[in-house]
Amino acid sequence: MSQAPRRPTIALAMGDPCGISPELTARLLADPDVLAAADFIVIGDRRILAEGERVAGVKVDCTVWTPGSGKPATNRAILFVDLGHLAPQAVEQGVSSAAGGSFALTNFRTVLRMGARGVADAAAFTPFNKHAMKLALPDYDDEIAVITEETGAKANGREFNILDNLWNARVTSHVPLKDVAKYITRDAVVAGIELTDRCMREAGFEKPRIAVAGLNPHAGDSGNFGREEIDEIEPAVEAAKAKGITCEGPFPPDTVFVRAKRGDFDAVQTMYHDQGQIAMKLMGFERGVTVQGGLPMPITTPAHGTAYDIAGEGVANSGAMRNAFELACRMATAR
Amino acid sequence: MSQAPRRPTIALAMGDPCGISPELTARLLADPDVLAAADFIVIGDRRILAEGERVAGVKVDCTVWTPGSGKPATNRAILFVDLGHLAPQAVEQGVSSAAGGSFALTNFRTVLRMGARGVADAAAFTPFNKHAMKLALPDYDDEIAVITEETGAKANGREFNILDNLWNARVTSHVPLKDVAKYITRDAVVAGIELTDRCMREAGFEKPRIAVAGLNPHAGDSGNFGREEIDEIEPAVEAAKAKGITCEGPFPPDTVFVRAKRGDFDAVQTMYHDQGQIAMKLMGFERGVTVQGGLPMPITTPAHGTAYDIAGEGVANSGAMRNAFELACRMATAR
Repeated sequence: MSQAPRRPTIALAMGDPCGISPELTARLLADPDVLAAADFIVIGDRRILAEGERVAGVKVDCTVWTPGSGKPATNRAILFVDLGHLAPQAVEQGVSSAAGGSFALTNFRTVLRMGARGVADAAAFTPFNKHAMKLALPDYDDEIAVITEETGAKANGREFNILDNLWNARVTSHVPLKDVAKYITRDAVVAGIELTDRCMREAGFEKPRIAVAGLNPHAGDSGNFGREEIDEIEPAVEAAKAKGITCEGPFPPDTVFVRAKRGDFDAVQTMYHDQGQIAMKLMGFERGVTVQGGLPMPITTPAHGTAYDIAGEGVANSGAMRNAFELACRMATAR
Repeated sequence: MSQAPRRPTIALAMGDPCGISPELTARLLADPDVLAAADFIVIGDRRILAEGERVAGVKVDCTVWTPGSGKPATNRAILFVDLGHLAPQAVEQGVSSAAGGSFALTNFRTVLRMGARGVADAAAFTPFNKHAMKLALPDYDDEIAVITEETGAKANGREFNILDNLWNARVTSHVPLKDVAKYITRDAVVAGIELTDRCMREAGFEKPRIAVAGLNPHAGDSGNFGREEIDEIEPAVEAAKAKGITCEGPFPPDTVFVRAKRGDFDAVQTMYHDQGQIAMKLMGFERGVTVQGGLPMPITTPAHGTAYDIAGEGVANSGAMRNAFELACRMATAR
């Protein structure tokens, strides 16, 4: 008899309270299929979740626990850790605020610390609003920097963008274009390919087919328009192959996504931010999911934002959040 | 009474003889609507055109003239300049060859010299095969280099890629990625925007709406990931606006094509080759047209290649070639 997969525990950080995040949190936690698949530890304020329930028109059945109030009861699938740090009337729907940014940031940091202590198997969060985060923390760059600060993990190459079944990984991310080439070393590319392979296997791919993009126009055109393909990327692809990874390349950057889109590959390992983002966003990445891999626990979130324009209307599409949850479960179970 | 637009003379260079180019040449020149719109001077070998006629199942009505044989009769819309330099049996269908590359290169150089002498108002060519060109001329890089050699015009920023009604221009092209940033100067960006505006007006846009892309991820994120937006591109956009050009930016490179695709802009001025090519190819640029602007005469060609796999089958889609011809006519008439 085969053993049933272990039921994972997912840590869920409530995101920005002024957009669709409370509604998405409530919809997810009220879904019987979701509750059949995982246990939850949710970090937020119970009053903000109540707002989300009201907007979504659903009821969430959870044990509410206040830190410091003794050992929590654990008879329900959802343990809601109520930090009691934001009253709904303190923020305005559809408007970014320091209070909202601070709420999301505290929830996220709490989840990251839970991951470090092994309390959860994977984490997810409903969308943040960058402007609100900056109001709360003026030197905020992105969630990647917060993760790096809390976990000490290195930042580059760790974020994956997933649309339908296509993964996009990158060797460099928030780096000025003029500096990209100096980070494209054989070692960095091999490390990137290896992390992609590992995370995709965790997500259920048996042998992910990874296409590696070149750096230069026409992948350097045999060295005419740059030598990184010859000196760094091609040797990296060969080294990764020698480790048993199914990868190919370097491919011309301007056709590799055309091929991936028609199904030739499961992933594209890009060399820099916009090489992948231009393609992914054109293909409809707002429906997709972002994953942080290579951490004590995987962290997933929908690719779309807080949609302030439809806050409180109860019309938010929860498909991408649902996909983010399912991916967190798959990756948690594989670990 | 308004005056009828002047009937343009289009110089047409026959491209690679081993793929679909002869068939496309024949289809174009046998189309009554095409002949109603322009006069032609076609450069090639009459026997290769005859092959194209046979494959396409059409007849081309033209005056054949052999250089050195006296003044050509001009009573037909098409003057075919028969260089007599390639017998069909000297090349194999579907296989790139030095003979085929040399044929295309000679035709192209002849057309460029005609343009320099003012014999034609615009030029077009059926597809070249890069491998064949390299067999004929080992240091061949691209048609851009040939144009530069023949006309002395500077190469950068001159090529436009057009899909449906969206134009893509670029400030740099076949440049290693590590060197791109140093070419992104205020002057280069202004010159690029001005050329885009001028060529699009020639092509019939009254006030083309030009979106200018940033260089860095998130357009530099206020200087966090690069300063070219602040120091060079934004001042360039302001300078172009001051000259009466309808332009905006710099926009984040990964969303500017999403906006252009939905109709917000007529053109995207990109900073480097793949910034535009990744987007254009994903949107189906093989249906599109490439234009060389800023020359003594505009030169257009379909974006697709020689399609060796369907050579001689008579099934080539001539839509992009037809679009290339129509664009050449519009740009010729406006001059």
